[in-house]
Order: sequence, then structure tokens, then C-alpha cells
Amino acid sequence: MKITVLSGGVGGARFARGLRALVPTAGITVIANTGDDMWLHGVRVCPDLDTLMYTLGDAVHEEQGWGRRDESRRTSDDLAAYGLGWEWFTLGDLDLATHLARTELLRGGLPLSQVTARLAERWAPGVTLLPMTDDEVETHVLTADGRDLHFEEWWVRHRAALPAARFVQTNLATATPAPGVLAAIADADVVVVPPSNPVVSVGTILAIPGIRDALRTTAAPVVGISPMIGGAPVRGMADACLTAIGVETSALAVARHYGRRPDGVLDAWLVDDRDADAAHALESEGWAAGSANTLMTDVPTTARIAADALALVGALP
Amino acid sequence: MKITVLSGGVGGARFARGLRALVPTAGITVIANTGDDMWLHGVRVCPDLDTLMYTLGDAVHEEQGWGRRDESRRTSDDLAAYGLGWEWFTLGDLDLATHLARTELLRGGLPLSQVTARLAERWAPGVTLLPMTDDEVETHVLTADGRDLHFEEWWVRHRAALPAARFVQTNLATATPAPGVLAAIADADVVVVPPSNPVVSVGTILAIPGIRDALRTTAAPVVGISPMIGGAPVRGMADACLTAIGVETSALAVARHYGRRPDGVLDAWLVDDRDADAAHALESEGWAAGSANTLMTDVPTTARIAADALALVGALP
Repeated sequence: MKITVLSGGVGGARFARGLRALVPTAGITVIANTGDDMWLHGVRVCPDLDTLMYTLGDAVHEEQGWGRRDESRRTSDDLAAYGLGWEWFTLGDLDLATHLARTELLRGGLPLSQVTARLAERWAPGVTLLPMTDDEVETHVLTADGRDLHFEEWWVRHRAALPAARFVQTNLATATPAPGVLAAIADADVVVVPPSNPVVSVGTILAIPGIRDALRTTAAPVVGISPMIGGAPVRGMADACLTAIGVETSALAVARHYGRRPDGVLDAWLVDDRDADAAHALESEGWAAGSANTLMTDVPTTARIAADALALVGALP
Repeated sequence: MKITVLSGGVGGARFARGLRALVPTAGITVIANTGDDMWLHGVRVCPDLDTLMYTLGDAVHEEQGWGRRDESRRTSDDLAAYGLGWEWFTLGDLDLATHLARTELLRGGLPLSQVTARLAERWAPGVTLLPMTDDEVETHVLTADGRDLHFEEWWVRHRAALPAARFVQTNLATATPAPGVLAAIADADVVVVPPSNPVVSVGTILAIPGIRDALRTTAAPVVGISPMIGGAPVRGMADACLTAIGVETSALAVARHYGRRPDGVLDAWLVDDRDADAAHALESEGWAAGSANTLMTDVPTTARIAADALALVGALP
């Protein structure tokens, strides 16, 4: 059985870990958002790929959701003394090892997809981990007061508190999906959109030319899990992103934003029990929809959520 | 009073610190060898510039002679798990902060000389610190058995134990001295060649087109301090380098290798008391030469050595 997952960071990584526990013999491919990536102090930082590697490699700081367990900040504390800025971005000593290894391989001429495969050898994630693209597509936030910020600066430094007018991606016009991405969608038995940020995580993946069409046309059913619980994001600040693109922060509005195939990208939508009304509304419109407890508190619970999602499209093995 | 010093790493840095203690009001310019520099895991490492910054900035690991005090290796220990090689090169967590800051500024388009000035602001070295060149001139070792190794790999990994056939520098033909280097030599009141490695430290500086001629023609006297004590290098493995270029490991042979101006680059040579015979031999050939205890055990002792060197050319203020 082949399952393809479109993932951002924490939410997608935790979902993928539960899915792997549910169907350990399935061939799972995770296509990761790389729009949050950046060059920082000369090294390439890929936040979502790292969160996926660490979460699936049993090295993640579990409570925090990202970064390494037992992390320290000797280098970044000392770096601050040079006064070059960006001190608000945590650059852990262990995490930095990943950035340095990645940078060495990239500077050696390997594309990000091959670099990712090489780094993942260490973590044995049990899934095929693909960046959405090998191109440097980075999300920028154009704020209501006219600033142009890298997504991470808006998200981490400003805690998404500066009203956003628009999200734009660099190099989008010439970007292509990384090798294996389109095939992973076309050849899957089921495609899953986990409870990741629908705007700046999944939305960015869908913006890479060719990926949205691949979802619209794959023979596999596509099922999404709402990132909302009771009308608010479970974690992160997805509401600030949705507001910027004029979408209400609700399980129903996010489903309609993704849209139903063939015009949209989904066939089915799993919401939290607290948003069961949304499931009923979607069902009356012809969607496959259902509700469950979608809070990913631990791996067994997340595996059960994955099972509920797969069941919606008859893909539970 | 303007004093210009041509420096490698540990020996040159310790000498410069003693010189600064001797003449705290002098304008001291240190021209550093950058032939040991390298791109490692995507960041730019400049061993001699770092040793100079840390030594003059009171942050050096005193016993070791290079690197930061209270250093740790969390990042490099973790990096080793990726198995990319170069684990033999120590990449301390605090040192790494310098490499990251430097790399960010270089990637931002600044030449190394400006980057060095910016980094040195933090360390307040009390001297003007200049790289010999802004170009990426790197020393390689061609070994007797046909290998081509970066100098650091030969020096650190192989402990200079692989017989070297030749030292070559990359990009030498098109390299130019960094801004300020030639003027610092031409306008000095005295130029000092400290007890650095005569082949791969000072020799590399002299190989940058224009620098040797600047030394030959400056109106300032040029005085060198022998890096040998009793016919052996005080530290490091200069003997392996000298052997490779066919020069005997002795205070006398190194003086003759540098040569007396105008054909060579020196006017005077200070040797250790244990090598006093060499001073006598040179004096009989017309050099200004003398002997002293040249072991740089602490700053006051080193200041005294600097005084002895300056006195040889009548440049003691």
C-alpha cells in the first residue's frame, strides 16, 4: 500500500508518525513544505524537513514539537555577541549539525532532494522524505504596513502579530516539483493532507507548478484532516494566515478553501468532534466527511486519527 | 610609531600580544596568513585570523594556543553522526559562532578584509588585523606518494607525517594583497617577522604577488625572530615543512632561506641563546643578529623578546 502525505512541520510530522504506527508496512512518502527554508548565517535551514526527520527519527523535543531533544545554545549565544541580528531565531547546537551537514552537501552540488535522502539515512524515518521542490522557493509575508519579511521573521520574531496582506513565494514561476513528487501523488493508493497550516504549509506545496494538478487528477482518493479544533488552530497561528487570505478560521471554511475535486484537491475531510457540524454540512454537499477526536496527544491516538481519515475514503488496509 | 607584523597562528599571535604589551601606543598592523583557510561544512574557517583575534582579544585557550577558552564540541560531535568526514578537524561550539558570523558577512558580499574588521570589533585586539589577501588562496600539500591534500588535512589529520613533496597555493597567480597590506609594509617604521612557520605561514604571505617586493623595498628595517630553539621548532611541525622545501631545520638555515635584503626580505635575525652560533655566523656575513631567550612563556617575557628584536634594528622606542 502506498500513502503520500503533504506535510508542514509539527502537525504533519506528528501525523506521519501516527500513520507509520498504523500501517508500518505501507510505503509512505512525505512531501514536505520547504517554503520556510532560509539561508541563515550562511547555512541552509529547512525547518519542516528537520521537524519531520527528528520526529520520525525519535530525536525531537517532544513538548516543543520541533528541534532536538537535549538541545543547547552555546553557539547561538556566542554568535549574538557579534551583533549581526536574527538572534530571535533559535539555532540549537545539535540542530546546527544538521544545517552544517546539509550546507556542505548543497555546496557540493547535490540537489535538496538528494541531500535530504542522505541526511535521512541517519534518522531512519521509515518514510521516503521529499522536499516539495529542489528550487529555493521561500515564503515572504507582505505586511499590511508595507514590509516584506521572510516568513520565519514574521512567524517567529513577530509571532504572526503584524497583520499580513499577502504571502508570496520567491522563484515560484520557474520552480518545479522535486524528483519523485508528482509520481508519489499519481501512483499513491491514498493521499493525505494532515492537520498542517493550510496557507503557508500545504498552500505553499500546492503552489509549486504541477502539484495542485497532480492532486486533482490522481486516481487515488485524497483525504484531509482539519487543523482546527473548536474553530481555532490546535497550535501555531494559522488563524493569522487564514485571515490574510480572507478565509474564516473554521473547519468548514478550510475544507472549502481546499475545495472538492476535481476543482479542488480533496475528496474527504475529517474534523474534530467539536466541529461535527462542519462534517454534516460537507456531507450534505456530497463530500465524504466525518468527525473524531483529532487532538494528536500521543502516537496511538494519532494512529487512530489516521485510521479514521483513511476509513473515510475506504483506504484502511 | 608604526609596526607591521607578518603572522601565522599561535607563534605570531603570542608575539603580537607581547609586542602590544611592549609598545601599547604604537600603531600595530598584523598581516595574517590565510593560506590555511577553508570551506568546511559550508562555513569559512580562517585558523590564523581566529587565533590572532582570540589571543589578542583575551579569549584564547591559553594552554592549547588556539581556539576559545571553555570550548565545547556539541555540534561537531553530533555532526560526526552524519558521517561526512573531516571529523578530525575540531569545530568548537564557540569557534563555530565566529565561522557562522564570518560566513554570513562573506555571503553578503563583503571581502574578507572588511569581514575581519567587523568581527574584530567584538574582540578589540588593539591592532589592525588584515588578511594577507581577500582572495581564496589555500595551501595544498602535494605528498611524496602523489596525494593532493588541503594543508589542514595534512597538518591536523596526518600530523604532517606524510612526507611532503611540495606546497602549492590555489589562485596565487591572480591573487592580490588585501587593501592596506602593501601600505602597511611601505609606511611602517619597522616590520617584524615573528617566530611563525617560515614555509606555510610567512612563506605563504610572501607568495602573494607584491608582498615580497614590498618587504624588499620598504624604507623600514625588517627584523625576524627565529622559530627554532636548539635546532628544533618550538611548537608545530615546521621541520616537516622545511624538509619538503630542502631547508635544514636550524636558526641559521631559516635566516638564509628568508635571505638578507635587498635580495631577501630581512635585515636582522634574533635567535635563541641556544642557537647563538647562528647569530655569530650571520653577523660575520653582515647581518644584524643577536640572541636571547626566545621562548614565549608569558606576556612579559614575550614583550622582552619583542624589545630585543626591535633593538637589533634600532627601532626600540
